[in-house]
Amino acid sequence: MNPNALHKLSYGVYVVCSRKGDKINGQIANTVIQVTSEPPALAVSINKSNLTHEYIKESGVFTASALCQDTPLSFIGNFGFKSGRDINKFEGINYKIGKTEAPVVTDYTVAYMEVKVTKEVDVGTHTMFIGEVVDADILSDMICMTYDYYHQVKRGTTPKTAPSYIEEKKEVKS
Amino acid sequence: MNPNALHKLSYGVYVVCSRKGDKINGQIANTVIQVTSEPPALAVSINKSNLTHEYIKESGVFTASALCQDTPLSFIGNFGFKSGRDINKFEGINYKIGKTEAPVVTDYTVAYMEVKVTKEVDVGTHTMFIGEVVDADILSDMICMTYDYYHQVKRGTTPKTAPSYIEEKKEVKS
Repeated sequence: MNPNALHKLSYGVYVVCSRKGDKINGQIANTVIQVTSEPPALAVSINKSNLTHEYIKESGVFTASALCQDTPLSFIGNFGFKSGRDINKFEGINYKIGKTEAPVVTDYTVAYMEVKVTKEVDVGTHTMFIGEVVDADILSDMICMTYDYYHQVKRGTTPKTAPSYIEEKKEVKS
Repeated sequence: MNPNALHKLSYGVYVVCSRKGDKINGQIANTVIQVTSEPPALAVSINKSNLTHEYIKESGVFTASALCQDTPLSFIGNFGFKSGRDINKFEGINYKIGKTEAPVVTDYTVAYMEVKVTKEVDVGTHTMFIGEVVDADILSDMICMTYDYYHQVKRGTTPKTAPSYIEEKKEVKS
């Protein structure tokens, strides 16, 4: 098995947000997909150790903002490589409170979706949250960032908690 | 709600294959994602009315071949807009029988993964098949086709049975 084959899967780059009471948090995710068209439903795979996981579990809602190609690495780093347990990730960030009362990040956002979770699937280290899209809009005509672009052009990296993380030693071996 | 926002989600383009006894079939899918890294696991959303759905249900295995940017529309049309109930989709197609005994399409393939299903999630019109990657390899250094490239550059269309299908009238309204 060549684990690098999994790097050939294509994704976008999203900020996935949720809330727990008055508290809000968000994180970077790449595994956002539409699973049915009627009604429109999304799925996302979130690491159980992440604070956003706890918030989605609690509130049963999440939002996903599809980021544009020009999103700076520092913006992705703020949501993707830091924990909402240590810092307030929304400081200096533009967002709105959506229909689900969860935050929707609007900076560098091409389009967003708000989701009410209807199913949780335990997939080991992660939970797949599946739910109905209750609101969605396009905010700009910018090009969406793909996960490949993030790696190849932006030279971004992948945290250990991501579904698509592959250990460096495995990469060398294959 | 603006349903076109959902078009801003990024995907690859894959041929997803399975078997039922000696019979083999495959279809185009865009909703292939990695859901955990340890062990590496994939998920795909497949329409319940598709023959490949019946085969995956029966055999509990599927393969996914990530197609390259240069894949001709006719090749995608053969797997995406025809039914294995009417034709043999593998006529004139290069493929191998993989570790799962399901076919792995090798034409225009950048990388493939073979998956043993461990969970089936009923999401309405579709089933999400989730499973462990039991084999995977990279077959070429070509660039992967994104779903966006398929639409924008290749001018490809989406069948009604796809998770990401949006009715034309909705598109005009929004």
